[in-house]
Amino acid sequence: MKVFNDPVYGFIEVGNNFLLKLIDHRFFQKSRRIKQLGVTEFVYPGAVHTRFQHAMGAMHLMGKALNTLRSKGITISDKEKEACEIAILLHDIGHGPFSHSLEEVLMPGIEHESISYQFMLKLNEEFDGRLNLALKIFRNSYERKFFHELVSSQLDMDRLDYLIRDSYFTGVPEGSINVERLIQLLNVDEDRLVLEEKAIYVVENFLSARRLMYWQVYLHKTSIGAEKIITNIIKRARDLYSFGQKIPMSPALEYFFANKINIEQLSENEEAMDHFSKLDDTDIWGSIKIWRDNKDPILSHLCNMILERKLLKVRLSNEPIDKSELQRLKHQVTKKFNVLMSDTHYFMSHGPVTNEAYILGGKPINIITKKEGVKDIAYASDLPNIQAISKIVLKYYQCWPKGLTL
Amino acid sequence: MKVFNDPVYGFIEVGNNFLLKLIDHRFFQKSRRIKQLGVTEFVYPGAVHTRFQHAMGAMHLMGKALNTLRSKGITISDKEKEACEIAILLHDIGHGPFSHSLEEVLMPGIEHESISYQFMLKLNEEFDGRLNLALKIFRNSYERKFFHELVSSQLDMDRLDYLIRDSYFTGVPEGSINVERLIQLLNVDEDRLVLEEKAIYVVENFLSARRLMYWQVYLHKTSIGAEKIITNIIKRARDLYSFGQKIPMSPALEYFFANKINIEQLSENEEAMDHFSKLDDTDIWGSIKIWRDNKDPILSHLCNMILERKLLKVRLSNEPIDKSELQRLKHQVTKKFNVLMSDTHYFMSHGPVTNEAYILGGKPINIITKKEGVKDIAYASDLPNIQAISKIVLKYYQCWPKGLTL
Amino acid sequence: MKVFNDPVYGFIEVGNNFLLKLIDHRFFQKSRRIKQLGVTEFVYPGAVHTRFQHAMGAMHLMGKALNTLRSKGITISDKEKEACEIAILLHDIGHGPFSHSLEEVLMPGIEHESISYQFMLKLNEEFDGRLNLALKIFRNSYERKFFHELVSSQLDMDRLDYLIRDSYFTGVPEGSINVERLIQLLNVDEDRLVLEEKAIYVVENFLSARRLMYWQVYLHKTSIGAEKIITNIIKRARDLYSFGQKIPMSPALEYFFANKINIEQLSENEEAMDHFSKLDDTDIWGSIKIWRDNKDPILSHLCNMILERKLLKVRLSNEPIDKSELQRLKHQVTKKFNVLMSDTHYFMSHGPVTNEAYILGGKPINIITKKEGVKDIAYASDLPNIQAISKIVLKYYQCWPKGLTL
Amino acid sequence: MKVFNDPVYGFIEVGNNFLLKLIDHRFFQKSRRIKQLGVTEFVYPGAVHTRFQHAMGAMHLMGKALNTLRSKGITISDKEKEACEIAILLHDIGHGPFSHSLEEVLMPGIEHESISYQFMLKLNEEFDGRLNLALKIFRNSYERKFFHELVSSQLDMDRLDYLIRDSYFTGVPEGSINVERLIQLLNVDEDRLVLEEKAIYVVENFLSARRLMYWQVYLHKTSIGAEKIITNIIKRARDLYSFGQKIPMSPALEYFFANKINIEQLSENEEAMDHFSKLDDTDIWGSIKIWRDNKDPILSHLCNMILERKLLKVRLSNEPIDKSELQRLKHQVTKKFNVLMSDTHYFMSHGPVTNEAYILGGKPINIITKKEGVKDIAYASDLPNIQAISKIVLKYYQCWPKGLTL
Repeated sequence: MKVFNDPVYGFIEVGNNFLLKLIDHRFFQKSRRIKQLGVTEFVYPGAVHTRFQHAMGAMHLMGKALNTLRSKGITISDKEKEACEIAILLHDIGHGPFSHSLEEVLMPGIEHESISYQFMLKLNEEFDGRLNLALKIFRNSYERKFFHELVSSQLDMDRLDYLIRDSYFTGVPEGSINVERLIQLLNVDEDRLVLEEKAIYVVENFLSARRLMYWQVYLHKTSIGAEKIITNIIKRARDLYSFGQKIPMSPALEYFFANKINIEQLSENEEAMDHFSKLDDTDIWGSIKIWRDNKDPILSHLCNMILERKLLKVRLSNEPIDKSELQRLKHQVTKKFNVLMSDTHYFMSHGPVTNEAYILGGKPINIITKKEGVKDIAYASDLPNIQAISKIVLKYYQCWPKGLTL
Repeated sequence: MKVFNDPVYGFIEVGNNFLLKLIDHRFFQKSRRIKQLGVTEFVYPGAVHTRFQHAMGAMHLMGKALNTLRSKGITISDKEKEACEIAILLHDIGHGPFSHSLEEVLMPGIEHESISYQFMLKLNEEFDGRLNLALKIFRNSYERKFFHELVSSQLDMDRLDYLIRDSYFTGVPEGSINVERLIQLLNVDEDRLVLEEKAIYVVENFLSARRLMYWQVYLHKTSIGAEKIITNIIKRARDLYSFGQKIPMSPALEYFFANKINIEQLSENEEAMDHFSKLDDTDIWGSIKIWRDNKDPILSHLCNMILERKLLKVRLSNEPIDKSELQRLKHQVTKKFNVLMSDTHYFMSHGPVTNEAYILGGKPINIITKKEGVKDIAYASDLPNIQAISKIVLKYYQCWPKGLTL
Repeated sequence: MKVFNDPVYGFIEVGNNFLLKLIDHRFFQKSRRIKQLGVTEFVYPGAVHTRFQHAMGAMHLMGKALNTLRSKGITISDKEKEACEIAILLHDIGHGPFSHSLEEVLMPGIEHESISYQFMLKLNEEFDGRLNLALKIFRNSYERKFFHELVSSQLDMDRLDYLIRDSYFTGVPEGSINVERLIQLLNVDEDRLVLEEKAIYVVENFLSARRLMYWQVYLHKTSIGAEKIITNIIKRARDLYSFGQKIPMSPALEYFFANKINIEQLSENEEAMDHFSKLDDTDIWGSIKIWRDNKDPILSHLCNMILERKLLKVRLSNEPIDKSELQRLKHQVTKKFNVLMSDTHYFMSHGPVTNEAYILGGKPINIITKKEGVKDIAYASDLPNIQAISKIVLKYYQCWPKGLTL
Repeated sequence: MKVFNDPVYGFIEVGNNFLLKLIDHRFFQKSRRIKQLGVTEFVYPGAVHTRFQHAMGAMHLMGKALNTLRSKGITISDKEKEACEIAILLHDIGHGPFSHSLEEVLMPGIEHESISYQFMLKLNEEFDGRLNLALKIFRNSYERKFFHELVSSQLDMDRLDYLIRDSYFTGVPEGSINVERLIQLLNVDEDRLVLEEKAIYVVENFLSARRLMYWQVYLHKTSIGAEKIITNIIKRARDLYSFGQKIPMSPALEYFFANKINIEQLSENEEAMDHFSKLDDTDIWGSIKIWRDNKDPILSHLCNMILERKLLKVRLSNEPIDKSELQRLKHQVTKKFNVLMSDTHYFMSHGPVTNEAYILGGKPINIITKKEGVKDIAYASDLPNIQAISKIVLKYYQCWPKGLTL
């Protein structure tokens, strides 16, 4: 039995030796060097917690949830318990640095879930098939479907942990949720995960908290502005690199500039696996500090912006940006930074953001009621706000450098 | 007025534009990339908070303390207030990565306080003397001595913030202290900082918490083991470098491998200042990941140890290690790692650790009593434990690789 | 300056001597013996906090709110500040024991606000007119209307304090709200209290929390059941008393059994004022313990129910109870308790309950937006749930003794 | 399974039906009406928590402790578990109102533990011997001694719960202890309760917190002053009563004024048991409010003091009060209150107070060390402060009415 201190839950106890082995594996240890919320620390300085902590926390909640279900008479074998804990521990192992922002730049067209899967395959090989069941549960090919729902659904252990953890580290108390109560009210009905009827208000609270965290934290304007700078730095560096310029960077980062990865064979591509397993926040920050002195003025300027916290201005609105407005902004950028029209995109950005606090039509959060059986929370609640939460989701952001007039 | 969210205090409000400028300066922004507790995250995964947060928190407490003193009739000008806030904000700006462990390797013989001072001189130049008073207070050459005590003493805003913050992020509730109460009971007597008589128990509690945090966190055995690996990695790389081997690393790190810095002229040494202002945790971790594949087996092995969390075994004891025991360990190391006797030191370490929760004889924490005037807390308390805390401070650690027999 | 410890806010500092006098007045000290949430402790054992604490907390928030407004440039004189603090401190002074349940039994037709007002008049006399402005603000006859809104509106200091305090003492974290943030975002526009635009999510969170606390705490089924027993005990005792039976009880309680009070002249009715100022929870509990041995079997049985926690069964439904169902229940009661049909009402109860988390059409919570000026939060939010919260408010409860079949 | 909300632990789950029966028994329900800390609310307004909550909390910790011990391989039968939970649930059932202050006045010479025992005997009769083992454990006549230590020792579940709970409700964070960690480190060695070696700092912290709570809360000067008024009110009323004066009061209180109780036969004395089971805080407060108008000026004056919070002045000193000083005070009292010398004691009080944070020589808190086996914490710690805590324990208080000159 090994005990990990955790500021959110007090203690996380791990009694299973194989889990301890996975935790110490360098594939997982890498998550110590990837911040859960990327650039959010520029808005919430406390938000420097890592994917490592989050994965440990989610595994801890998984253990509690399974124990609760057992205490309610659901039979769960030790093998199934271990498999669930492995699946949730490793569910995010495929994240690279600044995940959602850089994913598309570093490995275009590949989602981190697929990479997680490839790494789990690799580990399964290394550990002689011990992850077989975890892989099944992760991919939802195991017949007892509620296990997968605990790993990945609209009320999975992933979301429970990150919501309460992000609230703790950002210092946004409105995002705090009653995890203990939610887990206590879990049950299983016909192999589906359900919540008891009296959970309605707690689930509503969870979804409101989630929606609020989206607008206050995950989609915070200033965060978006910082994120775009990071993305554009990497894009600029990659573009220079592809034109043959020599840019200093880590071998791992360079590998993904130089190669296009095929996800299907990733787990057999030793080189790619090795490089990806080394790629973390330090590669990005390490590069940015060096590139600040790069002779390319665009790259150098962008790096300076993030290092001196001269972030982009950001506007969120209900309508996409107007073409002519965009054109005017671009003109100003060409003058202010003395760049070509075709390079203005490094300094600006626009696009949609979506607040997916609850998705209707997907796999629902189910409430089991005495009178009416199992119902989607959106219809079990006496308020229309969950249905509303699931509709009003789309806004548009525009970022541009300070000093320009919109 | 700008508001920073902080998980420890809720909000940190900064109304002073010049402070905001300093905060956004890249010299200070660098502290976002230096963890307050270095490798402690290997024991307490939550402890990834940065020097940035800590400095902001200490500045916040400074503001509260000065307001308290003003409300008790102490005259404090706005200029003095700003100077104190600047001094505490920048007091740790001279820290490099993994400060206490690497200080001695990267800039031998130079303490971080001197470097902070040099950076403050540099900023003073940049901002036309606006830091003059802050510099005086920092160096304790201002006539109103209690200002310096708020910046640096046994009950300064630095210690108050880091104790409560380290407790919050490690999840060690015993380290939590009643900062609000301590500040509320501050006063000034003959230009000395004092605490009202009823603060005795709260100060005792503060010193016990501090002592406990030393043994449970700052001097945690596993932390020491991880720290030594980091130190030895850098030592080995530097030794290889000085023998002319080509080792990939960031320009900033290389600069300090290649040059011996003279502290007196640091603020005039543009190159050194620039490189130091870029040196942070990412340079160290970035190197470690690359050096894992280095052809030097010692360097490669050490890097692998930290990346796969195969930490050193550590023993704390009241006696220094016995010479013959040391010899036996070294012999085992030569065999296990196939290295020369003269290289065994990269795998082992031993030395003293001191728990300086309270130092008698230094500048005391003063209690102002009705009957007996101002007294050192060690003698104002009715318990001998503060005197005891100040005596029992020395232990000896020994680290060695797992698998050897002590 | 006197400092009160408060578990919710840490410290409550009172620097105004006149406020301290009011706090120590026996009219206000009585609130130490009235629980804020009456019988809720039968569901949430921690909820034994008193009206005293709540009034102190609301006064504390008032001070913070006024300081915030001052820092935003709103002129507020010291006299106005004191008046607001007095008004909120005393706003609930007219509460008797188990207020909402017994109000109607002890002083039919009189609301506690009117009684508070009468007590404030009385104190104003005692203190030579020092409460003049507080009285004006309390009655909303002062021209600067936002002061009254801080005392009494849908976002007044009363609600902010009781929500966070009730959450703290019940242990229902979902009811916790970000009081600090809400106060920080207050402002005044054309003498109305408004919130800045970025407060929208925090206000939404406040209203959701409030709605949740209604269903989870204030209207908790078991609480309703306990409350009805208390009410029916007092009703039965009063009915016996009015038929000339001698029932032991405190002089204060007996006074309100024997006399019908005229609210208009209450402050001139020394006797009534004196008795009311003594009436608190202990009169009710003291009587219940004695009446348990009363020879009237109905009274004795009801007292025993609450003393042995044999509470009523309660059902909440969307429809009022069916007449014939009610009749069946009454029949069962006559048999089980051997009572007349006309006495069954002591053992049962039914009626509406309303969850008034936010009332549309009343004085709104105003958001000041950049584009559209001042808007009701119900329309400023991008979700319909605040409008929904204000609609779905009515349920019906039915209580009946355990063992009967509905 | 019934779930109780608790603000300190979140949820308290009770799965045992017999425990639920005991909880609902009126002997135990009475503890809802006895505040854990008596008059402490006059200093810490939040401290209105009840003995009910505390007993529930202690039972909850007992369950956790026993589960921890089971997980470490200690065999504990379900019967033993239930017995321990009963014993701790009922350990304080013999407390009357304002226990430590009024014990000596209402039932001279009888300790509350003996009364608890008598009530447990009575319940054992009512429930046909189901409390047999609980009684054995409570009286320490069961052969497995560590069970009794969990109920009553220097680190029992009673102390753990009340320390953390008193800290929560008073708002004195220094009193907070790491209950989870302390329980996690419990073990059993040769039928003794022990703590693992790494618990040393946590136990030290527990003892420091306990000592601090003594001086800051339990022996707070203002509390002592309030307590003495309550005691003297009851003494004065009893003295008047014994001289044949008719004083209105509850039958339960009158019973103990009129009768001297013999502890040995208490459980067979139906009348005494019944009256004691009804005696709680409301009897005292109910009387005080009525006695305020009593024609006896001493009684009336004392009641008024507590109702208007005109508390006694209190001094704590290291020496007992000087005889001549006492005489001078008495003279002033005779003049100020126009009373006989022989009645001055109703207005003044003096005596010793002891801070028994840790008692050396009693049954120790044991630490099990690797090298030296089981050791008393006082000697296992590397600081002398636990030994010191156990020595410096005695102070003297003097109380006198405001306005007199000492």
